[in-house]
Amino acid sequence: MDSIKDIDTVALDENEPAVVIIDQRLLPGEVRPMHLRTPEEIYDAIKTLAVRGAPAIGVCAAMGIYVAAEALSRENPSDDDFIQAYKKTSEYLDSSRPTAVNLSWALRRMERCFLSAMPAPRQEVLETLKKEALAIRDEDVDMCRKIGEYGVELIHEGDGILTHCNAGRLATVRYGTATSPIYQAHERGMNIHVFCDETRPLLQGARLTSYELFSAGVDTTVICDGMSASLMREGRIQMVIVGCDRVAANGDVANKIGTSMVAAAAHYYGVPFYVAGPSSTIDIDTPSGRDITIEQREGYEVTDMWYEKPMAPKGVGVYNPAFDVTDASLISGIITEKGIIRPPFDTGLAKAFGGKTH
Amino acid sequence: MDSIKDIDTVALDENEPAVVIIDQRLLPGEVRPMHLRTPEEIYDAIKTLAVRGAPAIGVCAAMGIYVAAEALSRENPSDDDFIQAYKKTSEYLDSSRPTAVNLSWALRRMERCFLSAMPAPRQEVLETLKKEALAIRDEDVDMCRKIGEYGVELIHEGDGILTHCNAGRLATVRYGTATSPIYQAHERGMNIHVFCDETRPLLQGARLTSYELFSAGVDTTVICDGMSASLMREGRIQMVIVGCDRVAANGDVANKIGTSMVAAAAHYYGVPFYVAGPSSTIDIDTPSGRDITIEQREGYEVTDMWYEKPMAPKGVGVYNPAFDVTDASLISGIITEKGIIRPPFDTGLAKAFGGKTH
Repeated sequence: MDSIKDIDTVALDENEPAVVIIDQRLLPGEVRPMHLRTPEEIYDAIKTLAVRGAPAIGVCAAMGIYVAAEALSRENPSDDDFIQAYKKTSEYLDSSRPTAVNLSWALRRMERCFLSAMPAPRQEVLETLKKEALAIRDEDVDMCRKIGEYGVELIHEGDGILTHCNAGRLATVRYGTATSPIYQAHERGMNIHVFCDETRPLLQGARLTSYELFSAGVDTTVICDGMSASLMREGRIQMVIVGCDRVAANGDVANKIGTSMVAAAAHYYGVPFYVAGPSSTIDIDTPSGRDITIEQREGYEVTDMWYEKPMAPKGVGVYNPAFDVTDASLISGIITEKGIIRPPFDTGLAKAFGGKTH
Repeated sequence: MDSIKDIDTVALDENEPAVVIIDQRLLPGEVRPMHLRTPEEIYDAIKTLAVRGAPAIGVCAAMGIYVAAEALSRENPSDDDFIQAYKKTSEYLDSSRPTAVNLSWALRRMERCFLSAMPAPRQEVLETLKKEALAIRDEDVDMCRKIGEYGVELIHEGDGILTHCNAGRLATVRYGTATSPIYQAHERGMNIHVFCDETRPLLQGARLTSYELFSAGVDTTVICDGMSASLMREGRIQMVIVGCDRVAANGDVANKIGTSMVAAAAHYYGVPFYVAGPSSTIDIDTPSGRDITIEQREGYEVTDMWYEKPMAPKGVGVYNPAFDVTDASLISGIITEKGIIRPPFDTGLAKAFGGKTH
């Protein structure tokens, strides 16, 4: 099997220049790098989930606007035209996925950098943009590495570890968030075993997480989403680590649908439940999970997608929320790049991230 | 959409004679009745899951051995030959699925009936066998109806009800076990809404339960197995009813994989969790869930079956138990044809079913 162990999920080919991603729509069947050279190619890659995961999308957009600026600079000798064309392209890329916070954040940061560099010799402006995009990438790598360093201290020799969905390297540049402690434990030669929830309906756990862990040599088992309680009952899971999409001020966590089900089972069986939450996901302005809007998706994903034929009667109701909210009371700790936050989360989060607003 | 509302899952065509089933492998796409006339056809229908669900299999085997006996009687004028041929055919049918308790039980009961009727005029023996097969069917219908009558008292106007897998009419002759209270509530004109876990990996909830409820006019929604906690958190599920494969003496329940996950979530969110358990599933000789052997199935069902292409990397581990055990402490009540057993289950079950051994 092809491995992605030593490939960054999002990289910059400085020679062309181009953004280089792995086409995640083809995984686990095929590892095919894609070179993205135009704003249209970058937009489509994000929109169609060839690249996915909030941190990875942010880095892709940052590199993408730099790559676009190289061409825009040539096409627009007038500084005013260049600035207008840059802004228009940035807005276009920002519209590829409206809900990903990191996408807007990265593009806003690149634009601030661009505007403060202008006017100046074009080569200098473009160099500044490239450096900023690479800085965003480096910060992502650093953040994931630190989450791994804090998180690995929670793992013991022989542990069975459960994860849900993909908060792996394929959702970031390298290491991942929930997977980062796992990779660190593996690199230290620890004997661990990882169970991946397949994560219906989009199967990110089976297709992506089990793929990236298995191809990195981690002992990996795929299970259906209803199976982890059975493993916990048998004493085969010592901890759960999941990623997150948003952490509210009280510690409630929005993450991929199915997470709160795992958390309730872990609670009943006394298994510690950890959330890997980089600072970009901590939202002090949202008081609790009740204030988080949950995206509802097409029923088609549940009943028809992937399958050879429809798996439910035509016309039956389907409920397909993309995320759910896990109560803070079910969470043992939130692993951030600043350390592990423990309950009570309201004070812990305010202390570590209180100055930060989105 | 074709409806199965008024069709028995297993029926006897007395004219041919033949066993008539609905080919469940084609659901929900097509409702195709199958006439089973030879022992080989009956064996294959059970083995390949054209007919499934322990009670339905038992009735199918009972009717099947009667149908077979009609031909065997013609082919074997000598009583000794007839008895030998009957026993051989019965053993053959019994080997179609080794784990289904009802299959062996129904065939043993038919054989006792056959042997005590012999020797006698053949027409009389065959008539006795037919009556016994129809009695087994009638008892199944009666048992399911009674479970419905007891269970419907637990349902309130406006309730959201969650069920897992298929303990529906398609697993019995009529009504089902877990679905019987639902059908009764629907027939009484109550406003209820049923959520069906799709039930990975074999999708019995999406393919069969949502199909039979929806085609009967019940307000039905399909969800993935990780979604019910989210609905419970939103207050949209007022009760859970599931079927069971075995109830131990202490009230621990073995049922389709994923059941214990739902039970843990229901426990956390304070939603009552009921098990529909006909007396044929109550096993007083098994002290607790620890003593129940769980069937492990092929990983292929998780990663490849149904799909257009494999959904996990080749060679990755897969864990695929067919059942799990739900602790008695998570169960609010067991709905039997003798009434609803409440905790403490050990004394309740012993009182109601103490005389019964398998």
